[in-house]
Amino acid sequence: MQRLKLWKGGWQLLKSTFERGSVQVNTSAPSSRAYSQAPSGFGLLFDIDGVLVRGRTPIPAAKQCFKKLVDHNGKYKVPVVFVTNAGNCMRQTKAEHLSELLEAEVTPDQVMLSHSPLRMFSQFHKKCVLVSGQGPVEEVAHNLGFEDVVTIEMLREAYPLLDVVDHDRRPKDKIPPTKGLRKIDAVILFGEPVRWETNLQLIVDVLLTSGSPDNNWDSVQYPHLPVLACNMDLLWMAEAKNPRFGHGMFLVCLENLYKKVTGHDLKYEALIGKPSVVTYNYAELLIKQQAEKLGWTTPVKRLYAIGDNPMADIYGANLYNRYLQTAHRTKVQLKAKGGTGAVEAPSESAVSHTSSSSSSSGLGRSAGDAEDELPDGCSSILVCTGVYSKEQEELPSDPSETVTEQRIFHGHRDFRFDPNLLQPSFVVDDVKEAVELVFQQEGWPLE
Amino acid sequence: MQRLKLWKGGWQLLKSTFERGSVQVNTSAPSSRAYSQAPSGFGLLFDIDGVLVRGRTPIPAAKQCFKKLVDHNGKYKVPVVFVTNAGNCMRQTKAEHLSELLEAEVTPDQVMLSHSPLRMFSQFHKKCVLVSGQGPVEEVAHNLGFEDVVTIEMLREAYPLLDVVDHDRRPKDKIPPTKGLRKIDAVILFGEPVRWETNLQLIVDVLLTSGSPDNNWDSVQYPHLPVLACNMDLLWMAEAKNPRFGHGMFLVCLENLYKKVTGHDLKYEALIGKPSVVTYNYAELLIKQQAEKLGWTTPVKRLYAIGDNPMADIYGANLYNRYLQTAHRTKVQLKAKGGTGAVEAPSESAVSHTSSSSSSSGLGRSAGDAEDELPDGCSSILVCTGVYSKEQEELPSDPSETVTEQRIFHGHRDFRFDPNLLQPSFVVDDVKEAVELVFQQEGWPLE
Repeated sequence: MQRLKLWKGGWQLLKSTFERGSVQVNTSAPSSRAYSQAPSGFGLLFDIDGVLVRGRTPIPAAKQCFKKLVDHNGKYKVPVVFVTNAGNCMRQTKAEHLSELLEAEVTPDQVMLSHSPLRMFSQFHKKCVLVSGQGPVEEVAHNLGFEDVVTIEMLREAYPLLDVVDHDRRPKDKIPPTKGLRKIDAVILFGEPVRWETNLQLIVDVLLTSGSPDNNWDSVQYPHLPVLACNMDLLWMAEAKNPRFGHGMFLVCLENLYKKVTGHDLKYEALIGKPSVVTYNYAELLIKQQAEKLGWTTPVKRLYAIGDNPMADIYGANLYNRYLQTAHRTKVQLKAKGGTGAVEAPSESAVSHTSSSSSSSGLGRSAGDAEDELPDGCSSILVCTGVYSKEQEELPSDPSETVTEQRIFHGHRDFRFDPNLLQPSFVVDDVKEAVELVFQQEGWPLE
Repeated sequence: MQRLKLWKGGWQLLKSTFERGSVQVNTSAPSSRAYSQAPSGFGLLFDIDGVLVRGRTPIPAAKQCFKKLVDHNGKYKVPVVFVTNAGNCMRQTKAEHLSELLEAEVTPDQVMLSHSPLRMFSQFHKKCVLVSGQGPVEEVAHNLGFEDVVTIEMLREAYPLLDVVDHDRRPKDKIPPTKGLRKIDAVILFGEPVRWETNLQLIVDVLLTSGSPDNNWDSVQYPHLPVLACNMDLLWMAEAKNPRFGHGMFLVCLENLYKKVTGHDLKYEALIGKPSVVTYNYAELLIKQQAEKLGWTTPVKRLYAIGDNPMADIYGANLYNRYLQTAHRTKVQLKAKGGTGAVEAPSESAVSHTSSSSSSSGLGRSAGDAEDELPDGCSSILVCTGVYSKEQEELPSDPSETVTEQRIFHGHRDFRFDPNLLQPSFVVDDVKEAVELVFQQEGWPLE
């Protein structure tokens, strides 16, 4: 095994967390046993950008490691799911791209995009939803189960006087007629759009008119109609030297414009994508599906999340781990009192969990059996091939010289920031080292 | 004279202000004299949108009133200047449009756009400035005296990896080379651009790299390089029923994104356009020029500002009036002590006044003679043909039903809001009634 780095007190923190809690994750791992052929009770969550690819270039370690993750029949040794905050595309496309890249078959049901959990929000599937983003947003929405979808472009055509920031879009000779449209019931923000001014203006119009932009603005309609947002990543690394704006920056604009006009806070019905708990909940369901496909009969007890972004991947995995610990403690306490042991997410999650228990795709779990199916814990493994690099860590002489995710809170407004959750369980060089570490922890060295 | 409405305690407030101050404006007006042919010591500031036009439709009262404002030779009876927060266009174009509309000759030196005071910021004229806006921004900048102008488009071409929110703008097959550009010294925000995501990303890049977007982001370079912003109007009225987003909304986005990334407040070197004092200072200089053209030898002592927007026109005129009162009081106090009587703007103005005393266009005034030339006061007259309407005022049964400029502070972040400054000296139906009122106040009824 290659060099292993433990970040600051990360390991100590993790250990003490487990010691305080009722469940021991890594220490309960069967380090002396060797399941060379048998199900091992754990699953892997892989981030994509910065872990398997950088921009359009594959990271060499990725292919090497996936060679070891499948047997000679091309079957995965353990359940594997890919969890990315990318949206504005289809799972099928992403799966094909990964299959080619990793030279291992990846199926769409192994891929989770930031919007994938919307499949569980069936209470909105028959409502009229306005979707914001770029790429095939309408198709993405339909695939997720939404039946009545309105795009920003359809709204512009129905109400041609609304979008006038661009002088070239202002009515020229005669005022075009307003055709109107059915009332919008909810707004879904898939990802960063193009021409932010158009989406910002039209979304604020829809919120202030309760879905009928032909009505007068009315800020007493508060709380406004439901807003569901996917992917809150503020910044991401592309080919440029400095981070680039992500969907999180669009959300910052929308939140502040809404507040400036109405004096009220914009409220989210759900914030989806890493680091929200609802995303890991959904990823865990996909892992269970994969375990079943592999013919496993024993439950998946341990999850390992491998990522490059401390604020999304590490924070999210740790937040989910905290949720799991709370769930298990609650279960123990309630069982002692003879209660049902219903599981609540920790307050940092800031997501609507009312929705995650219902499902239109058979992926839901009932509240009654939730705690019995939950894994014992989720470990976070940080790789140095993306947003986070060892160079950053090894240049502490003037730490103020670089804007890093660590120094300033680049998370979403609605996440109360807990610096402890930025501490990964492990820091390794790359994804190959990460997977070797997991198998060693599990007492099952990779060949 | 038509019906005259005094808004709430507006008149009382104005009277008591004058009684407290050392100067009496309206009460010192020569109400018993009739200057039917002679200079009358006052000038008129007209807002354009909502006062003279609505969208593209002329307001009938405007033409009627301008017929009375010029003599049979087409010469104005008093100095007239048009003060609009519009930008993204040229003074010449605006003057031609007004001449046609009002059937009275309007020259470019009677027109003041939101960016016009930048002519006085000569310390930036030889620096390399990045300009943001739409329309002929480069030409506008050159006309104002800026010699070294970089547009957002030029920056995109020089650094092709920066603007990647739009998937279609991301590099496709091979990474395009970075050509680079000279270092940028200051940023000038003329008006709302198109594709906000591009301007927001590139301006933040420029601020975080001290003008060289090829360098690493460096948030310790604070305060950042100078930012000058024109037109802070949050909302404006076009053909749509509800207000539309103005440049002020773009500024809200920029301020909040910069703060989210760096943790620091974005600082403005200057905020130009109504309601800032620097704009009224400049308008007053234009009024003096007009008085000279008319052959007046006596100073312009009273200004009347006619507008439709309480937050821009009324707040601005009142803020300027307060500035004038402070200036005169300071002069009296300092003269008593044998000082020079230098004039400082009130704290609400939030503009750099260091610049307004220097000039590259002959419009500047030296600090020494400033207070001697200043008018005694500026009255604000609100018309009901634009943003503000009597219907709004006469529907108090459920005042929360409409978002109005009065209920929520729609001014800029850097303006400490003083509700007293929203009280106009007078409320009238339209611009014709406004002008008749002024001439009656001045003891010179219009024929």
